Amino acid sequence: MNSSRRAQGIAPFHVMDILARAKALEAQGRDIIHLEVGEPDFSTPEPILKAAMQAIRGGDVHYTPALGLPELREEIAAFYRTRYGVELPAARIAVTPGASGALLLALGVLLDAGDEILMADPGYPCNRHFASFIDAVPVRVPVGAESAFQLTPPLVERYWTEKTKAVLIASPSNPTGTLARDEDVRDIAALCSARCATLIVDEIYHGLVYEGSPQTALAHADDVVVVNSFSKHFHMTGWRLGWLAAPVGLMEGIERLAQNLFLAPPTPAQFAALAAFSQETHSILEARRLEMKARRDFLLPALRELGFSLPVTPQGAFYLYADASRFAADSFVFCEQMLDEVGVAITPGEDFGETAPERYVRFAYTRPLPVLQEAVARIRNFVSGSQA
Amino acid sequence: MNSSRRAQGIAPFHVMDILARAKALEAQGRDIIHLEVGEPDFSTPEPILKAAMQAIRGGDVHYTPALGLPELREEIAAFYRTRYGVELPAARIAVTPGASGALLLALGVLLDAGDEILMADPGYPCNRHFASFIDAVPVRVPVGAESAFQLTPPLVERYWTEKTKAVLIASPSNPTGTLARDEDVRDIAALCSARCATLIVDEIYHGLVYEGSPQTALAHADDVVVVNSFSKHFHMTGWRLGWLAAPVGLMEGIERLAQNLFLAPPTPAQFAALAAFSQETHSILEARRLEMKARRDFLLPALRELGFSLPVTPQGAFYLYADASRFAADSFVFCEQMLDEVGVAITPGEDFGETAPERYVRFAYTRPLPVLQEAVARIRNFVSGSQA
Repeated sequence: MNSSRRAQGIAPFHVMDILARAKALEAQGRDIIHLEVGEPDFSTPEPILKAAMQAIRGGDVHYTPALGLPELREEIAAFYRTRYGVELPAARIAVTPGASGALLLALGVLLDAGDEILMADPGYPCNRHFASFIDAVPVRVPVGAESAFQLTPPLVERYWTEKTKAVLIASPSNPTGTLARDEDVRDIAALCSARCATLIVDEIYHGLVYEGSPQTALAHADDVVVVNSFSKHFHMTGWRLGWLAAPVGLMEGIERLAQNLFLAPPTPAQFAALAAFSQETHSILEARRLEMKARRDFLLPALRELGFSLPVTPQGAFYLYADASRFAADSFVFCEQMLDEVGVAITPGEDFGETAPERYVRFAYTRPLPVLQEAVARIRNFVSGSQA
Repeated sequence: MNSSRRAQGIAPFHVMDILARAKALEAQGRDIIHLEVGEPDFSTPEPILKAAMQAIRGGDVHYTPALGLPELREEIAAFYRTRYGVELPAARIAVTPGASGALLLALGVLLDAGDEILMADPGYPCNRHFASFIDAVPVRVPVGAESAFQLTPPLVERYWTEKTKAVLIASPSNPTGTLARDEDVRDIAALCSARCATLIVDEIYHGLVYEGSPQTALAHADDVVVVNSFSKHFHMTGWRLGWLAAPVGLMEGIERLAQNLFLAPPTPAQFAALAAFSQETHSILEARRLEMKARRDFLLPALRELGFSLPVTPQGAFYLYADASRFAADSFVFCEQMLDEVGVAITPGEDFGETAPERYVRFAYTRPLPVLQEAVARIRNFVSGSQA
């Protein structure tokens, strides 16, 4: 019995091999430091939990409208007003089952079979799989340190064809943690607009930025699509809740897709998220953001000092995408050996694309500072051996 | 700004017009009886709520594996053993974001662009939209009372082409509430198997059957795909949790699709669902099933007595699909007028397909008996006027 070509075309995540190996070592009693996981180590903030418990208690956990609870859409609109000074009507917001749901809706409403979507490589691997799942064509644009691993207007121009219908920017990026420049986002939006295409901006790590304060793409143009999430900044990963902001003209199509594909986002998560924008939650999140910054500010110079190359300082998310080519010709082998020898798990570059992946590894600073310190000590032992 | 043809191809639900009209009337102070909604009126059972609260309380609401919590997959496997006497390894079960997620995975892993899938018409409208979302071709097979609104082996033979890669049966069916015969399911499974295609059986209403006890399709063949849900029978609609049982050979493709499309099903719902198979929950669900049966046993003869035609007794779900052609040439107009004149909201046949939809309306008995009694009194007033 065979899977569809659609399913066979999805590359497995190499990090799964690393994870399986890490679990096997743990089963043997080894202590493994997990820096491969793209999930913060913090619990869901207390006010959000309380809101969830209160909503669930009575058992009235029924379907909501397909685009989400009206009051949650209003809260998200207010968030854009407060945080970015952007007026966004709630009617342009769709609450979704995670940013994953938002990306599927965004690509589904914009792309037909054969249409092309430009995206940076390295990038989040699911993005290209969302495109090929619906028979659209993900066009991977190689990016490097010279553009802070982000698309730029000249790169978009260079890869544009008559089939290009969308451009996807993720800022901050997974795996690189780097930001797109506001003016590049604005110019790429204008470029798309002039050619009847659409810019999609993934802002799910926007709340986790440690230098500067990037503007939302929604401030630059009315015809962009923005994807966001309660997972990373609001520490609600397991709840599976995100959102999409889109031009008015796309909302009917988005609603019909959402009705048919999902029925509605999960109700407990939506009631929980009503507390995500409160002052109390904000204080908790701000403290955690500073903790994340402290981790970055420790790990980044430590890795550089060990000999990893990170020419661009990552301003956000919780990832460091490091060139490890000084230590090994193949970063996957490097990851395997580092795990085996000193018990530190990281993700090989192969999971993020085709642009020199054998040189790169991704560190996720999703562990507390003392653990990161121990990790650096172990890595020092390992690479001093590797260089010998 | 235009939506993709993909999005434009999705017909709006006509019931949304009915709902909007009902809300407008309610805003004017009218009392509306809602029999249009495909959602049970019961709360989530207490043991399930308790399990959710306990899991949430500590805030440890992180991602689970893409195919779901291992212990929940084991519980579902045990459910097949206990309820159906079928041995199904947990490795063949994927926990999904609702049956919607299960259907998207099932079609995604089986169908490529241009592949055909046969399905009964009338049927659940999202099914054909799932297929066209991924550029596959839903082939709607007209069914009527003579086959209890279900596919039969001869019907499948008649509509089979060299592009047919899957057949979808929903038993009990939405909107008709009728069951496929066990032997037809078995024979269609064999027919698919012989032709390198796959039978998908939607069993989400299997727990709500009032006569006989249908066997799961998994008992007939190892190479069928079964979709089920915690929404309807377990009264967990808003939680968005379902599952998929599939042949071993498809599980790797399903896992990769699930990782990329969803990351994981919602965690609170999964912990909640761990209590769905307990003896305590079972007693609650059994009482509710009997209450549903009592509603059907009241509403079905009442509608027949009023002059609606229901030649096949619906054995399950909570729907009655009634021929109203004695009262009106266009069932949509009939629904609108009945709502306006006596305040009873039902769903027009148009939402379920192309097979004489203008003759049919769907009643959902998702209200308590006294409300159904009031509804029948109102409908009696209305149709006695219509017939004059």
